[in-house]
Amino acid sequence: MATKEKKTLQNLFHDTLKDIYFAEKKILLALPKMAKAAQSDDLTAAFQKHEGQTQQHVMRLERVFAMIDAKPQGKTCDAILGIVEEGQETMKEYKGSPALDAGLLATAQAVEHYEISRYGTLRTWAGELGLQEAVSLLETTLQEEKDTDRTLTKIAESGVNQHAEAA
Amino acid sequence: MATKEKKTLQNLFHDTLKDIYFAEKKILLALPKMAKAAQSDDLTAAFQKHEGQTQQHVMRLERVFAMIDAKPQGKTCDAILGIVEEGQETMKEYKGSPALDAGLLATAQAVEHYEISRYGTLRTWAGELGLQEAVSLLETTLQEEKDTDRTLTKIAESGVNQHAEAA
Repeated sequence: MATKEKKTLQNLFHDTLKDIYFAEKKILLALPKMAKAAQSDDLTAAFQKHEGQTQQHVMRLERVFAMIDAKPQGKTCDAILGIVEEGQETMKEYKGSPALDAGLLATAQAVEHYEISRYGTLRTWAGELGLQEAVSLLETTLQEEKDTDRTLTKIAESGVNQHAEAA
Repeated sequence: MATKEKKTLQNLFHDTLKDIYFAEKKILLALPKMAKAAQSDDLTAAFQKHEGQTQQHVMRLERVFAMIDAKPQGKTCDAILGIVEEGQETMKEYKGSPALDAGLLATAQAVEHYEISRYGTLRTWAGELGLQEAVSLLETTLQEEKDTDRTLTKIAESGVNQHAEAA
């Protein structure tokens, strides 16, 4: 029991970096499918734009791995698998329904909020570990995730759901 | 293929209500364990306070189920199971480590952000479905989740992580 080495904030930072790296790569696979499934042009465009940003997020994470002398490596993140799986169910169950886009938006916002929590945590820890360049990279991604969430909220509150309701 | 009844925003609202009802009940089971595991008194107090709020959230959801003439019922939410599972791993792996509280905070903030996304979505849909009383209940819970997230951020940025780093 007491023989294990005591884990530190450095370990936690590295573990959480692997978690979000896995998550970003999953999201990169899910976004083109969501863009294709979306009925509204605005939503398709938002997913396509976010796919480009997500590629940047993966690259930024790889730079943070390098800063702690670690190889970029993912660690299965059950939370993101659960959200993506729920999204796939929605796409199947609501295919051809006017409520499909509302469901896609809900999935995408759950993804964004998972990422917002992870990047917020990682940025705080990077600061405490004295990794100033990592703070800046993680902060940039965090702001992009928040912007994406705001864009999705605007789309949700504008045409998409009304369309679902009216049908 | 085309024989299935077309699903509507009402269906999506009901499905998502079941998802968050399941999630809240899971969180209600996880919070006392997290409060017990936490090393900082502030964090224990925050988890205990949030346990009381979560009981209210469950009751509010039951009132929303009643408003749509549905029985309160959960539907397995893999996302929250994933987050809670990750939290349990952290509690095990970081037991006795000064970084334990930082890990608990990260888990709790991932939970809060999942809930923030779900309640935001449900509140918007309730408005579009003309369920004004539900809007008000869901908005109250949403604000409590956001307040909890802010409290956790304050704790994360104050003593807890510095403690982890110093050790």
